[in-house]
Amino acid sequence: MRVLSGIQPTGRPHWGNFFGAIRQYIDLQDDNDGFYFIADMHALTTVRDAAALKQYTLDAALDLMALGLDPKKATLFVQSQVPEVSELTWLLMTGTPMGLLERCHAYKDKKEKGLNADAGLFTYPVLMAADILIYDSEVVPVGQDQIQHIEVARDLAGSFNHTFGETFKLPKAKTLDHSAKVPGTDGEKMSKSYNNTLPLFGNVKQIRKQIMRITTDSRAMEDPKEPEGDHLFQLYRLFASPEDVETMAAMYRRGGFGYGDVKKAVAEASETYFAEARARREELEANLDYVHETLRDGAARAREVAADVLLRAQKACGLR
Amino acid sequence: MRVLSGIQPTGRPHWGNFFGAIRQYIDLQDDNDGFYFIADMHALTTVRDAAALKQYTLDAALDLMALGLDPKKATLFVQSQVPEVSELTWLLMTGTPMGLLERCHAYKDKKEKGLNADAGLFTYPVLMAADILIYDSEVVPVGQDQIQHIEVARDLAGSFNHTFGETFKLPKAKTLDHSAKVPGTDGEKMSKSYNNTLPLFGNVKQIRKQIMRITTDSRAMEDPKEPEGDHLFQLYRLFASPEDVETMAAMYRRGGFGYGDVKKAVAEASETYFAEARARREELEANLDYVHETLRDGAARAREVAADVLLRAQKACGLR
Repeated sequence: MRVLSGIQPTGRPHWGNFFGAIRQYIDLQDDNDGFYFIADMHALTTVRDAAALKQYTLDAALDLMALGLDPKKATLFVQSQVPEVSELTWLLMTGTPMGLLERCHAYKDKKEKGLNADAGLFTYPVLMAADILIYDSEVVPVGQDQIQHIEVARDLAGSFNHTFGETFKLPKAKTLDHSAKVPGTDGEKMSKSYNNTLPLFGNVKQIRKQIMRITTDSRAMEDPKEPEGDHLFQLYRLFASPEDVETMAAMYRRGGFGYGDVKKAVAEASETYFAEARARREELEANLDYVHETLRDGAARAREVAADVLLRAQKACGLR
Repeated sequence: MRVLSGIQPTGRPHWGNFFGAIRQYIDLQDDNDGFYFIADMHALTTVRDAAALKQYTLDAALDLMALGLDPKKATLFVQSQVPEVSELTWLLMTGTPMGLLERCHAYKDKKEKGLNADAGLFTYPVLMAADILIYDSEVVPVGQDQIQHIEVARDLAGSFNHTFGETFKLPKAKTLDHSAKVPGTDGEKMSKSYNNTLPLFGNVKQIRKQIMRITTDSRAMEDPKEPEGDHLFQLYRLFASPEDVETMAAMYRRGGFGYGDVKKAVAEASETYFAEARARREELEANLDYVHETLRDGAARAREVAADVLLRAQKACGLR
């Protein structure tokens, strides 16, 4: 099954990104024909700095490959290296009702907040539809907030097929599993907008310091505590083995421990968990030629599929 | 000077198109580096029929070449055969304020009439800006109604240059000469929307019939008439030599003639005027391989320029 995932290169990924999305995307490479692209054209709507965009794009590739995306199993590429996506975007744009875009959340929310919206944000569901349809994608794993955009892609594909004859495969959304709760350093959901994130990669000492500063409640050390619902425990559970989690739960229920000990345990467990990825990332950083070559090969494979689908669409509407 | 003209392939051109625009575009090929493209991607906003779009696109090429566009002097190509245009469209889209597009007439007019506007119509000033900027165009000859879109192209180029550094040349509009009045068969301005057009090419007998049905006033044959302001006279003046125009004017002032005679004179003068183009068009129709080859060569030349400008823009904003 052709599975498509787009990753926005807008900064360093955090634990929330990893457990909520990245890990799940990558897992799909084993039983599917995974197409993974780094959405630099989408990022352009927010990153208006050339050096930053270039760095973020490379970082995204390094992150994904370090975290286990295997170029032998999946196709990894950069969005803007497939010109066919831009070409299809215009084809779809001509049949897109304004109302469909006006109802899309990302634009609506920004407008309602009185923020300046540009045409890039307004039309990005059309670009996203082109991203999906150009690879005959069958399944698109997304978070709840992106389901609307998959609906837009289905709508545009359906309406193009209706006008010009069967051309596009209709993609299906696959909702990501959000059961793994990833609290941030303040106990709220980890999110860049709350400024409470813990990064996957970066200076280990610094991350450890951030972990040690996680806010905790002021219950006395002696009191027994219920582990469920405690955010430090939730973080620990992400990384530790079931046995270690059991031991930690028992310690919570018994009481007589300090949160500092739990923080140390979280730090150690997360370091162990990401150790392999961290080593692989360093290796890749020392071998950027290989990374660029991987992206080039990926783009070439993606373009093969994209060229076929684009030609099909161009013929259908009379451009070829 | 790089001069750019886009021609919408939305049907057969009429006398109004020719004197108001086409002839003036073509004249510019002599002293400029003329880039002429057939805007099939723009046409897609209105022509939703593959066979029609293909035919219109080919017809536009035949028309232009028949009317004197010389592939040795100018570059003639089809818009969609330059993928770089689509790529640049997205780059520009990300910096386009919604308000700029909302103020554009074509969209505003349609919306105010309560008609269904789609995102293709809404964003087509961005595509048009990409069309212009991708060739480093210096001058864009346009009708009065298109000046706003050249302003949009200048705005987008200026704001991109401001954000990312000097990248695009700022184009200038050159307003077409509208002094040649071309009345339609009902005496109003010749326009497809008034359904009063006379085609450049097509069945001569049929066109002659249309000319003979041009509405005239009911003044008696004997009365002297003022030629200025008379639409038949205006049509005659488009085609006849200055001497013949003088003779006709004298006949008007003398009176004692029938409008039927003038119509015949208009028919004959227009047939003579377009005879060479008509013959050339028939020749081209019998030699479509040459036409397609011309368009292919044109696209290749256009892409050379476009690839350079696109790369400049991609580097400027960090996509390369």
